[in-house]
Amino acid sequence: MPCCVAFEPLGIHADCVRGTLLHEVARNTGIALLSACGGSGTCGNCRMKIVEGTVSSPTAQEYEKLGIQEIEQGYRLACQTQILENIRVYLPPASLAIDQRLSLAGPDRAAPFDPLVEEKQLIMQPPLAYNYQADWERMAAGLQSSYGISAANPDLTVLQRLPVLLRENGWRARVSIRKTEVIDVRAPHQSPLGLALDIGTSKIAGYLVDMESGTSIGMGGIINPQIAYGEDVIQRISYAMEQGVQQLQKVLVAGINNLIEKLCSNPQRIVETTVVGNTVMHHLLLGLPVKQLGMAPYTAAVRGALEVKARDLNICSAPGAYIYLLPAIAGFIGSDHVAMILATRIHDTSKTILGIDIGTNTEIVLAHRGALWSTSCASGPALEGGNIRCGVRSVAGAIERIRLHGSEVICETVNGARAIGICGSGSIDAVAELFRADIINSRGQLMSGPGVRHNGKEKEFILVPGAENGIGEDITITQKDIQAIQLAKAAVRTGIEALLNNANITSNEIDEVIITGGFGTYIDPASAIAIGMFPDLQREKFKQVGNAAGIGARRVLMSKSQRSIAEQISSRVTYIELMQHPGFSKTFARAMYIPGL
Amino acid sequence: MPCCVAFEPLGIHADCVRGTLLHEVARNTGIALLSACGGSGTCGNCRMKIVEGTVSSPTAQEYEKLGIQEIEQGYRLACQTQILENIRVYLPPASLAIDQRLSLAGPDRAAPFDPLVEEKQLIMQPPLAYNYQADWERMAAGLQSSYGISAANPDLTVLQRLPVLLRENGWRARVSIRKTEVIDVRAPHQSPLGLALDIGTSKIAGYLVDMESGTSIGMGGIINPQIAYGEDVIQRISYAMEQGVQQLQKVLVAGINNLIEKLCSNPQRIVETTVVGNTVMHHLLLGLPVKQLGMAPYTAAVRGALEVKARDLNICSAPGAYIYLLPAIAGFIGSDHVAMILATRIHDTSKTILGIDIGTNTEIVLAHRGALWSTSCASGPALEGGNIRCGVRSVAGAIERIRLHGSEVICETVNGARAIGICGSGSIDAVAELFRADIINSRGQLMSGPGVRHNGKEKEFILVPGAENGIGEDITITQKDIQAIQLAKAAVRTGIEALLNNANITSNEIDEVIITGGFGTYIDPASAIAIGMFPDLQREKFKQVGNAAGIGARRVLMSKSQRSIAEQISSRVTYIELMQHPGFSKTFARAMYIPGL
Repeated sequence: MPCCVAFEPLGIHADCVRGTLLHEVARNTGIALLSACGGSGTCGNCRMKIVEGTVSSPTAQEYEKLGIQEIEQGYRLACQTQILENIRVYLPPASLAIDQRLSLAGPDRAAPFDPLVEEKQLIMQPPLAYNYQADWERMAAGLQSSYGISAANPDLTVLQRLPVLLRENGWRARVSIRKTEVIDVRAPHQSPLGLALDIGTSKIAGYLVDMESGTSIGMGGIINPQIAYGEDVIQRISYAMEQGVQQLQKVLVAGINNLIEKLCSNPQRIVETTVVGNTVMHHLLLGLPVKQLGMAPYTAAVRGALEVKARDLNICSAPGAYIYLLPAIAGFIGSDHVAMILATRIHDTSKTILGIDIGTNTEIVLAHRGALWSTSCASGPALEGGNIRCGVRSVAGAIERIRLHGSEVICETVNGARAIGICGSGSIDAVAELFRADIINSRGQLMSGPGVRHNGKEKEFILVPGAENGIGEDITITQKDIQAIQLAKAAVRTGIEALLNNANITSNEIDEVIITGGFGTYIDPASAIAIGMFPDLQREKFKQVGNAAGIGARRVLMSKSQRSIAEQISSRVTYIELMQHPGFSKTFARAMYIPGL
Repeated sequence: MPCCVAFEPLGIHADCVRGTLLHEVARNTGIALLSACGGSGTCGNCRMKIVEGTVSSPTAQEYEKLGIQEIEQGYRLACQTQILENIRVYLPPASLAIDQRLSLAGPDRAAPFDPLVEEKQLIMQPPLAYNYQADWERMAAGLQSSYGISAANPDLTVLQRLPVLLRENGWRARVSIRKTEVIDVRAPHQSPLGLALDIGTSKIAGYLVDMESGTSIGMGGIINPQIAYGEDVIQRISYAMEQGVQQLQKVLVAGINNLIEKLCSNPQRIVETTVVGNTVMHHLLLGLPVKQLGMAPYTAAVRGALEVKARDLNICSAPGAYIYLLPAIAGFIGSDHVAMILATRIHDTSKTILGIDIGTNTEIVLAHRGALWSTSCASGPALEGGNIRCGVRSVAGAIERIRLHGSEVICETVNGARAIGICGSGSIDAVAELFRADIINSRGQLMSGPGVRHNGKEKEFILVPGAENGIGEDITITQKDIQAIQLAKAAVRTGIEALLNNANITSNEIDEVIITGGFGTYIDPASAIAIGMFPDLQREKFKQVGNAAGIGARRVLMSKSQRSIAEQISSRVTYIELMQHPGFSKTFARAMYIPGL
């Protein structure tokens, strides 16, 4: 009996035979779980929660590693649990390997599969004596007679391979047709792949899809290697203005090719790639000048959707394959935002929905009565661990959860490793908890009290003493750090208010808040509300959906109708320039308080 | 007062100011005349014939170099002759430099100028604050509002240059649009160029055109560098089968790029290139396999017209420019034949016309009552100087004209240099004259008599004794050479007969015979009739028009309507396979005699 496993919040569905171990299904699906014991149930790393459906009874190892209480809550070890029917599983971040967290996918319910690239099997008659039909014309005639397809033109590389391929495979071939162009031809048994890329300023996520069945067959993530040339887009623009875009383009392409090689052994099977990213990443990938993006009026070289041959960018693919780049909205709102709207279906709702993708720049969209407004706010690097004294990215050992119980500080770290610093979600928790415990006031000022000390320059609060962490010196949050978090949360909140104000509604009218992005998946909405970053709405209204931009890229990969919807979205959205918005400064100043608005 | 000079048989028209010296006009037009004296009238190399119109009176130097008789016939020295009104001039082959002869153009009367690539000047409004239109969208809107052009997509390289170009040129630009694609963008003063290429097995000719005015601004030729890998297409195919096509493609592209650099100082201005050539050259340029072209049923990889980005072939051009390759007819009849038909307008006649392009393979077309039939015959290398003991290509010192006056042999050589061998037109003359003088019989056998000797292996006839020539040993034509010429002429004649037979007519019904190609321009039709290569028709019916294939390539460069006519021609022509034609062997055997048929 086949069973289906739905992995949340990844949004991945996988089929398996009844009785299969959960960690096997995860592994086969490309989900990288932590495991130190090789599946013997002794490390306890592969902990996950069964949300729906029946599985085998807990083993002795599970009782030992998890305890009765957790098991009663539904927690299990993937390596010990057999699947007995269709189930839904929640993977806690701590159970996922780092790579996996980079490329975390959002949910994707029943995305249509109507790819732009059509795949056809063709069986042709070999040429006889005194038959002068050329190979290409023979193939075009076959596509016409067998499938009614009028293929007007072949890619050059198809012609270069066609004569040998046809003769070696007994005049049978698999053909990839894109619009009126034959872009690829392969031996009959080689199925086509597709790749969706989400190119972020710090991370690049890739999703590999079997383009015959529409099945997701892999995902992976890498750090954007441009990090070496500057942490944020402004630094990348500065570098490009001094040194040209070529070097930044080169390292980005090399990084993407590394990711592709990690994802599949034969990139020549990739017949289509879709790309989303912010406007600067988009420009750097294409080798477009970025200087004009860095100064008013922040003009992009191009906003609309683009199709370029992968070979023109040196990106590994079938030799004739295209790369489709989704359209952007404006200089500061890139195609990743369009993809996020598409994936979360914010464009297709009669509700009032707020969509928030948090990062160095935070993009926010508001859907209200069928209209869409978007804005971008400079939330700065603090939420990604930048400009924070002990700030780190979301790497192993990063503190991502903080709770204060009296004078005790309880920290959860990524991968459960010894603490090495504090990442964005941890910082928000810290500020929220310190405020709740009256250790900081509504201005964010650290009071005197247990855990607070003066380090000579400023006050700071000790989270993990050096003796207990992985770096040997105290991990603290300083007065400056708190101020950086206040600036970031005020920027986000000001953006939200501008959109609400523009739609002439209050936050009470919001039906749903969708928080997307790798960072957004891990923040605690309660903490974000506590510090005033988000409006104070019922907890159920908040949904955290993972990397919606990547899912949007995968959707347009799998569906030409979704592609045209994405293009419509990019023209439908009204861009709100925050600095231009009436009352911007006043709102921002108020939003600096905790909780502020 | 402006005067127009028509240069025959080049088919080039040039304008000049009244009083200009003829050799200046030729030089400015890109015609390479021989000149050893630098224009002082002392070398006599730039001899040409005034066919129509008034020029200045002959100078003393001209009387000295040409003599009264030649001057009375209209001959003049270009460096001494001032143009006084519209004139027509005939350039004898001997006055043209080698380079020029390689690229000899045929006549081109009033070719239409409606290029596929449209050129537009665009003046745009710069972006103001809070205007989020991207550069490309601004340009597209400008093309729409100023010219009603819907430019759907930009080439990637256009986007890469657009932001800087617009800002450096005050938001003005020159735009090249091809169908719905913007392929190039340049500073407002940079006018576009176009290039037509005729890629022959031994020679490559290039024609440069100003794509704004349609004026021809240069032409040039080079030896096909693939010569180093085999003299004919069969040898090239063999090499490619052993070593792959890459090396052959590489040297061909390098040769073409050399030619382009000779023709223009800034190849980045070339916005479109058209290419004609036989099917093997076409395949090797594109890097297509040729093995299947070398064995029955001689299947081409592709027959139809193709458009590829010049950058995909590494050919120097504007970064976004295309190369258009004219369609072929069948494996052995390439796009050069289609271009020849187009240029000579054989497709557009109610007359009965025979078109012949002589080479190692000779292509022949017959137009009769609006139908077109073509065949290809393996005339072999003899007509191009190959497999002839003293055979040479049409280089300086090649004997190209032979007359026997009694026992005296009078030879004309290319460039008037000391004889070094005999080229195709010389060989035909030799056989014709030897037959006329009864030195060979109708079987082609050398009789005994003055000038004939036995060299130990075979009989031969001495054309130029070693003492009088440039190689120090006797230049002769041997019994074997004569047989090679007989095989070649029999092949050509058999092809002609097959076409006539197919149309069910006799040679008497032919209204016109058009002989094209570099070689065809120099043969003496009377000699070709005398040996039976051509049917015995009145001399006036024969027209020698130079490189019609190259002119056809130039036509489709200059005109999109001519391009679609070329595509129609390629489907209209019925290919006649000679070996399949009834009575082939019998006709061939009879055609071996002199004159034979």
